[in-house]
Amino acid sequence: MNHPLLREVRHNPLLWLLAFVPAVFAAESFAADAHTLLFVLSVLAIVPLAALLSHATESVAAKTGDAAGGLLNATLGNLTELVIALAALRAGEYMLVKASIAGAIVTNTLFMLGASFLLGGLKHHVQEFNKASARLQSGLLFLATVALLIPSAVGGADSTEARASFVHTLSVGLAVLLIAAYGLGLLFSLKTHRELFGSAEHGEAEGEPPWPLGLALATLAGVTVLVALVSEVFVESVQKAAEAFGMTPAFVGFIVVALVGGAAEMASAFSGARKNRLDLSVGIALGSAAQIALFVAPVLVLLSYVLGPTPMDLQFWPGAVVMILISTMTATFMTNGGRSAWFVGALLLMMYLVFAMTLYLMPPQVA
Amino acid sequence: MNHPLLREVRHNPLLWLLAFVPAVFAAESFAADAHTLLFVLSVLAIVPLAALLSHATESVAAKTGDAAGGLLNATLGNLTELVIALAALRAGEYMLVKASIAGAIVTNTLFMLGASFLLGGLKHHVQEFNKASARLQSGLLFLATVALLIPSAVGGADSTEARASFVHTLSVGLAVLLIAAYGLGLLFSLKTHRELFGSAEHGEAEGEPPWPLGLALATLAGVTVLVALVSEVFVESVQKAAEAFGMTPAFVGFIVVALVGGAAEMASAFSGARKNRLDLSVGIALGSAAQIALFVAPVLVLLSYVLGPTPMDLQFWPGAVVMILISTMTATFMTNGGRSAWFVGALLLMMYLVFAMTLYLMPPQVA
Amino acid sequence: MNHPLLREVRHNPLLWLLAFVPAVFAAESFAADAHTLLFVLSVLAIVPLAALLSHATESVAAKTGDAAGGLLNATLGNLTELVIALAALRAGEYMLVKASIAGAIVTNTLFMLGASFLLGGLKHHVQEFNKASARLQSGLLFLATVALLIPSAVGGADSTEARASFVHTLSVGLAVLLIAAYGLGLLFSLKTHRELFGSAEHGEAEGEPPWPLGLALATLAGVTVLVALVSEVFVESVQKAAEAFGMTPAFVGFIVVALVGGAAEMASAFSGARKNRLDLSVGIALGSAAQIALFVAPVLVLLSYVLGPTPMDLQFWPGAVVMILISTMTATFMTNGGRSAWFVGALLLMMYLVFAMTLYLMPPQVA
Repeated sequence: MNHPLLREVRHNPLLWLLAFVPAVFAAESFAADAHTLLFVLSVLAIVPLAALLSHATESVAAKTGDAAGGLLNATLGNLTELVIALAALRAGEYMLVKASIAGAIVTNTLFMLGASFLLGGLKHHVQEFNKASARLQSGLLFLATVALLIPSAVGGADSTEARASFVHTLSVGLAVLLIAAYGLGLLFSLKTHRELFGSAEHGEAEGEPPWPLGLALATLAGVTVLVALVSEVFVESVQKAAEAFGMTPAFVGFIVVALVGGAAEMASAFSGARKNRLDLSVGIALGSAAQIALFVAPVLVLLSYVLGPTPMDLQFWPGAVVMILISTMTATFMTNGGRSAWFVGALLLMMYLVFAMTLYLMPPQVA
Repeated sequence: MNHPLLREVRHNPLLWLLAFVPAVFAAESFAADAHTLLFVLSVLAIVPLAALLSHATESVAAKTGDAAGGLLNATLGNLTELVIALAALRAGEYMLVKASIAGAIVTNTLFMLGASFLLGGLKHHVQEFNKASARLQSGLLFLATVALLIPSAVGGADSTEARASFVHTLSVGLAVLLIAAYGLGLLFSLKTHRELFGSAEHGEAEGEPPWPLGLALATLAGVTVLVALVSEVFVESVQKAAEAFGMTPAFVGFIVVALVGGAAEMASAFSGARKNRLDLSVGIALGSAAQIALFVAPVLVLLSYVLGPTPMDLQFWPGAVVMILISTMTATFMTNGGRSAWFVGALLLMMYLVFAMTLYLMPPQVA
Repeated sequence: MNHPLLREVRHNPLLWLLAFVPAVFAAESFAADAHTLLFVLSVLAIVPLAALLSHATESVAAKTGDAAGGLLNATLGNLTELVIALAALRAGEYMLVKASIAGAIVTNTLFMLGASFLLGGLKHHVQEFNKASARLQSGLLFLATVALLIPSAVGGADSTEARASFVHTLSVGLAVLLIAAYGLGLLFSLKTHRELFGSAEHGEAEGEPPWPLGLALATLAGVTVLVALVSEVFVESVQKAAEAFGMTPAFVGFIVVALVGGAAEMASAFSGARKNRLDLSVGIALGSAAQIALFVAPVLVLLSYVLGPTPMDLQFWPGAVVMILISTMTATFMTNGGRSAWFVGALLLMMYLVFAMTLYLMPPQVA
């Protein structure tokens, strides 16, 4: 048979993990208390679903033309992260939502970028990438994280009534501003100054021919529903499973959720780096981090008024603020020159290890 | 009639606002308790006076030759801000003085620079400016803000006797150091390495012929006295009027005072950006911010020993420290490449909006 | 006589200070309580010993070939600082050890770099240096200081049992990571990408012919023992002498110990700058700071489990954290462009003065 979906599954070993999707639902029916099993199965199921979602989004984008396609890629590129966070939001797990936002920014800027530089650098002596494009993206990212961190910086530690209400109003205002900034950024990169964002555009689809529009749209809809269902299992089981593995909640939110949610994008970024197409890798890593900060996080704040038990604000714990700021500044600094070698990647990964180790060892009451 | 002062008034609609200068004094005699009215009138009166002061300073500078002229421009360029802050200093309103210092740095680096980039970028696709000059100025600015922030960083939150005395001694020492650094900066940019500061020099006078020296000096003296008198009315009325408008004191000091005091320079910077002379705009914005940090702030600390009820130190509230540092780092980063487009301006303005919104919403007891 | 050691002593007036080495031991026997005298004598004795140690290390490095020599230079380059810190470690003076680590980073990045730029700039109008090499070194330094500061950032202010144990485990983990990063950095700069580190390599030996291997090894061993003995006197006397001079403990650790320990490297860096070989100066200043953060500090943490009365962690007081971060960011920013003039040096020195003044004035209980 030659159906494109089946051909994709045959050629992409990652998709063989799709077998775990029914396994999750089966396990949930028969062993609803086996949290560790449910956690492992749901992780294994989300990874291939995220890959399918990513390919479906790109196929739709390729068919609908440049501007609309870019818009689609930009809004649905982090759909997996958004759906997982929505499941946590509905369950009222705001600590987990915030940790996954912070973790996605840190993981994209340190782990995804660092592993791309390292994998690319092990094959190519020195790699070059589009400096102007990286600068614009890291500028956008820097400004986004600043906005995201203002409530934590001025909110203060004590929690009086007046201050809590101030932080909530401020968070809503910032959410609206961030989405507006994101819209302007799309206008800039897809419309008025698209020539500056040269080679990073549409590179993702290379090698894999896009699907027909109908199939892509159906996949997009169907897989989103599946991700949503599996995410609920994931969110319910993750905290209990983490305890069983001896992981702190902060580690789970920051590291585990971020790695699971970003697995599909990482596969694209790493493969780009190996092919000496570092523009692609840098674009995915910085673009995805910016999208989390500018689009996913404010959408979650606004949706918390509709879906959550209580409104969610943008106040993070101080350690998360420090990690986000350092990651963003490091990524900005490291992509500033437009060149990389394996050691730059190793340093970024080392820094990620520093953060991961800190979160792993941290006593639960600190976060 | 062809008197240069009158010709100026006829050609520059901003100066028609001079009619509000007598209005302020009239209102003060007849309605000393109408704080909102006095506030609005004094704002409307300060703006044209600042424009006159700016043009008079440049005329004197143009007549006295390069080095002396540059020195004059550098010391009197923020005369309006200095006179307003002195009025607040004499009234013992140290919170307002410090907020206006912090606000002037933030407003110059985010609003003035951002609006210049945006206005210039709406007319020109990509604009270039002198990278070396921008780097030197932002380096100076960065180091100045660090010095300014050290007392807040090491001063700590608790206020024992020993610590208060430490912070005061430290503030005086830093004030002397900053003025020395400012002097060295002038020596560098006007004398030993003036060729690096190329096109930003003397651009301001373009288009408007300088006044004769006598007229310029007389205007300088007379208008300074007027600004001082109007500033007293402004400082007395601003807090009460702010309450009437529902603004927090932090918002008034940071945003309102800074916008009023810098109106004249903003007009020059924006007009330079529209004419694709971005060197001029960047030079005014960064230079003015550096001057506030290196010259105006330390002069105010030293003068507080003579003019104020008690000595003033350089300890800011933590939110102001964060905002100053972020603004300076952002301006440094954004001017580093020597290129700009409308979106860079939009991002800087967005960040200014983030800060303004935070200050507007902040409960008064936080600051 | 023409023995190389004697010829060196005759040509290098710094080495005449060697006469103070026996003077220290004599004074310690006859006047063990004259702390101020012992302090002054030990400072005067350490400076020439550090110079000898530095020349001996370079001579061994020159004889053993590129890779092994680079490795030797890299591990023994800060031997003086390490030996002094070990003496403090054995005495259980952890405040002094941490202050000397922080102070060495700040002194190398602000004072050594600043004075090199100033001294070079007074002789040469504008100086250029290898931008790529400076970027890599400042990147390494930046990442090292981040790792060093993480325990302070997440450790928090309160000191419960659980938190103290967390900070200790984290410090050991970070120490291992930092040493691994340092090893990778050596692999990168000495092996896989040595061509990027061009002119900064092997410049140090210029002008002074290397000693024969036997003499160099004997000097290395003998002088290390002497430094260790003098350091014990120094560490014992420094706190009491500081009180006599009216200096705070923070000032002594940060400024005095760092200047004494780095005197020999400073002599090389300044002489390079005067000869317009700024690559050399920047390499020594940034490389030495990175080595302290990546190698000396973690080695001290690990050795504290063997040599110290209790284990030492990596938690610094907040003011030190701020100073290290600012110094590193400033050095990164200032070396980013690959050009310098006297004013850049003046600014870095000004910032060092700001820090020194703050530490000098700070009441003892703050640190």
